[in-house]
Amino acid sequence: MGDPAGIGPEIIAAAWEQLQAIPDCQCRVYGHPKVMRRAAVLRKVSTEIDCLPCCRGDVLGVLPGMIDARTGHAAYQSILRAIDDAREGIIDAVVTAPIHKAALHQAGHHYPGHTEIFAEQCGVENYAMMLYLGAQKRGGVSPPVSEQLLGQYGLAVVHVTLHTAMKTIFEQITLDSVLAKIRLANGFMQQIMRTDSLPKDKEPVEIRQPPAASPRIGVCALNPHAGEEGLFGDEEIRIIQPAIKQALAEGLQVEGPKPADTLMLDARAGKYDAVVAMFHDQGHIALKLLGMYRAVNITLGLPIIRTSVAHGTALDKAWQGIADPGSLIEAVRVAVQLSQCHQNGK
Amino acid sequence: MGDPAGIGPEIIAAAWEQLQAIPDCQCRVYGHPKVMRRAAVLRKVSTEIDCLPCCRGDVLGVLPGMIDARTGHAAYQSILRAIDDAREGIIDAVVTAPIHKAALHQAGHHYPGHTEIFAEQCGVENYAMMLYLGAQKRGGVSPPVSEQLLGQYGLAVVHVTLHTAMKTIFEQITLDSVLAKIRLANGFMQQIMRTDSLPKDKEPVEIRQPPAASPRIGVCALNPHAGEEGLFGDEEIRIIQPAIKQALAEGLQVEGPKPADTLMLDARAGKYDAVVAMFHDQGHIALKLLGMYRAVNITLGLPIIRTSVAHGTALDKAWQGIADPGSLIEAVRVAVQLSQCHQNGK
Repeated sequence: MGDPAGIGPEIIAAAWEQLQAIPDCQCRVYGHPKVMRRAAVLRKVSTEIDCLPCCRGDVLGVLPGMIDARTGHAAYQSILRAIDDAREGIIDAVVTAPIHKAALHQAGHHYPGHTEIFAEQCGVENYAMMLYLGAQKRGGVSPPVSEQLLGQYGLAVVHVTLHTAMKTIFEQITLDSVLAKIRLANGFMQQIMRTDSLPKDKEPVEIRQPPAASPRIGVCALNPHAGEEGLFGDEEIRIIQPAIKQALAEGLQVEGPKPADTLMLDARAGKYDAVVAMFHDQGHIALKLLGMYRAVNITLGLPIIRTSVAHGTALDKAWQGIADPGSLIEAVRVAVQLSQCHQNGK
Repeated sequence: MGDPAGIGPEIIAAAWEQLQAIPDCQCRVYGHPKVMRRAAVLRKVSTEIDCLPCCRGDVLGVLPGMIDARTGHAAYQSILRAIDDAREGIIDAVVTAPIHKAALHQAGHHYPGHTEIFAEQCGVENYAMMLYLGAQKRGGVSPPVSEQLLGQYGLAVVHVTLHTAMKTIFEQITLDSVLAKIRLANGFMQQIMRTDSLPKDKEPVEIRQPPAASPRIGVCALNPHAGEEGLFGDEEIRIIQPAIKQALAEGLQVEGPKPADTLMLDARAGKYDAVVAMFHDQGHIALKLLGMYRAVNITLGLPIIRTSVAHGTALDKAWQGIADPGSLIEAVRVAVQLSQCHQNGK
């Protein structure tokens, strides 16, 4: 459900009928049934929304768009219950709606976000966040015109450094960290490509290229113009090139380091299945311009499958009936795809 | 003409008839008339292209797409002649087609690019480079669908740091440098807004917002999430906020520092007339995704008007008849607009 004062409940309601149409997918909301009923009324949804009660009734007193300990706690309780059910095998995947960090803090739960709650509950220390923009026309969701490109399997973006000061990225960009993210991007896109041919969509996926044998990965340079042969920085020569060389030796299909601005144009044109970005803005500026409301956030390294919307609670827009459910629908779709892959792998 | 082995000559030829249709604009190529005739044949242009001979005949022996001292020198001579004519008032503005740095170097001219040649010839030490993406539907050039937004006056992007290693940007991002770029962005967009209402376009400009009294400027943060109140870096608090405060005190309409990824979405939606980016990739990733082949490069601080295409020689595509003249047409249009403003100011 996410934070009930944010756009979580209404995007679930707005998405509900489309979610029912996803093959091999049964959805259940973890949250408060009355909140979900209000959201259903707001978004004019006649189908009953299946909601498992996870939180106290005091959440109903919080006004839309407010930061409050009650909604923060309700979101937290719902997450814990969903994680438990996933770990026990009652559900195959958890898809999260946005929560608000300040509300969570007010309720006494001091986490930067969802990801850290999942990691703690699952007892995991090594995990990674990935952003994924699905391929076109999946399940009849028509993306805006600006997004009508990308490759057949969509585009995954992994960041070597993420939520850290720009001054500190240099110590974090190492041969090992770049190589680890290249492998991660490769492994994830292999899963996506493996399950992509399963019959789950009625609309045919438009084929722009012949299916690639292995994911095509583009690695961003750190410096402008990829450093101009060392003129504007040498991390490309010292770190990124050797990491790519190692990945190539492992049989991966990798290119780079390329100037990030032209690499992102190539990615939009469908040249890559995954992009490894060196820092937050490289990946996020491109990904948001390419499809803010379709991007999905995926946590890798957990014993359970977890996907998430890639946007926040949007408190200023909440409960006005205008929030876009695109990212949530995509997040559910990718969760289904990953759990099919997981089951096939068993 | 640019480097004759690159796409310069053919984009001029491809643009020629559209350039004739720009009101108050007479174009002349500085280069080699035979090169321009070849380009006219390639792009099937029947109108005669006016070309002032500026370089030696040996340039005709260079094959398309090659890096050669002869073409490097020809490009250099053409630039010098155009700068001379502009300084003497024979022409109102210089618009440059792409040159190739390595060809220039082979010819013994050791400059990183056009801009430094202009600065040296004009005896100028303080100059700045700006990228500008014009408003929609100007003079009938129909932009691709992905660009059908932006504000009424287009979007200017100024970089506080540009062609420098990422490790060195921190010493260059100061209160003074950020403030200088905010003022620069403001001054440039004021010129554009002042001349925008002059009757020079037959097609009406679609008005998306009421005309702004002063340019609306968005300033990017340096760190992810604008530093999360100092959690991911303090440059926002120490440097960028004080610079914005100072600009506000000067009466400028400035907002920020905002996370660059969401600020660029706002810019696309027409919320800003200009964006101040902290480093190369912030501005370039967005600008290229928003309209690679319409972006114009403008040098500010020269005694003459100089605009340029925002792309390179594209040697791999040159003389195949496919290069897009969009950026060149926009560069000419902006040069005309700036020279009208210049004349009105006299």
